Amino acid sequence: MRLKHVKGASEKIENSKYIIKNETAHKGKYHQLFNNNNPIHIEIGMGKGDFIIEKAKQYPNTNFIGIERYDSVIVRAVEKLEQEELSNLKLIRMNANDIEEVFKNEIAKIYLNFSDPWPKDRHEKRRLTSLNYLKKYDNIFHNEKNITIKTDNRKLFEFSLETLVNYGYKIKEISLDLHNDRLKNNIETEYEKKFASKGFPIYMLNVYK
Amino acid sequence: MRLKHVKGASEKIENSKYIIKNETAHKGKYHQLFNNNNPIHIEIGMGKGDFIIEKAKQYPNTNFIGIERYDSVIVRAVEKLEQEELSNLKLIRMNANDIEEVFKNEIAKIYLNFSDPWPKDRHEKRRLTSLNYLKKYDNIFHNEKNITIKTDNRKLFEFSLETLVNYGYKIKEISLDLHNDRLKNNIETEYEKKFASKGFPIYMLNVYK
Repeated sequence: MRLKHVKGASEKIENSKYIIKNETAHKGKYHQLFNNNNPIHIEIGMGKGDFIIEKAKQYPNTNFIGIERYDSVIVRAVEKLEQEELSNLKLIRMNANDIEEVFKNEIAKIYLNFSDPWPKDRHEKRRLTSLNYLKKYDNIFHNEKNITIKTDNRKLFEFSLETLVNYGYKIKEISLDLHNDRLKNNIETEYEKKFASKGFPIYMLNVYK
Repeated sequence: MRLKHVKGASEKIENSKYIIKNETAHKGKYHQLFNNNNPIHIEIGMGKGDFIIEKAKQYPNTNFIGIERYDSVIVRAVEKLEQEELSNLKLIRMNANDIEEVFKNEIAKIYLNFSDPWPKDRHEKRRLTSLNYLKKYDNIFHNEKNITIKTDNRKLFEFSLETLVNYGYKIKEISLDLHNDRLKNNIETEYEKKFASKGFPIYMLNVYK
């Protein structure tokens, strides 16, 4: 994603009630922040937030946390939320690499939408479905581990299938052409809308262990 | 596949030295038929045999058995073999459903190329990667179980990924667009040549357990 400098972004982010500022302080007790024991779903790399905001609206009995590392991107989600009152949504500005510092045994589901494919072999560890990350996820999940991936990047999808399956995940749902399956309840990300309209396949995988 | 009546097919098949006639008699001791202890690879639904004949030529230290149920199809393989001297190839005319009657703990690898997708739900059991068949394969494999699939049928491929992975198979190799990967050593089936030339993706999966 090409990043622009957005004027006043950090200030807007600082002032948003949706942003969790001291994220490590809530480790293991995020349910307290939501004042309930509903399951917590996170999206790592939420971009401008279309997906997670729509999820939060459609599923009021699930808590959602969107994670994004770039100010210039997360500020777009913050702006979209200015007129919204969603008590089941929070955002964290952080690097996914630190995810174990922030959560512990409390996540029910992880969404990875159109993640950076990091195509070079030497960057394999940075892919959000690398063994490096799968090990981290083990520590943040509550009971059942559940990951849903969407991507248009074939190589990333093949890689993810291999790593997840060989790490013991089983397949709940798979589509190699999501938009031709017209899956009910598919919430499109901003990137997905643009991409699918060109007729390229969107790959989807939902796994658990 | 549309089947034609081929005149003299059964006679040609009967007389071919490549055809194993009393296939159940060799159960558990197929290596004797090849006079060696090389690994035995089978292709279920070999069609006209292009793939398995080429494999046999390229890998003289592996034994190959092609299985096909239709006279009018297997006769084409028999004709292609008339001028060949391949001691590491045999063909069996049989229904895959009876596979446990024919082999026992002696197969090293199964190839499934462009298998019938049986798209209707009520025909699921007939798909060669249904649970029904995976259980049969358990009894014919020797030590490691290894299955390689190629297909152009997206739904069959998704189904196969689910059944195989959820049955405990791990992924060795996967491609969602085999011909764009230019995998070395890919031997094309007759069907594949026709299909890939139209630009549709060929899916490939190599699993083991």
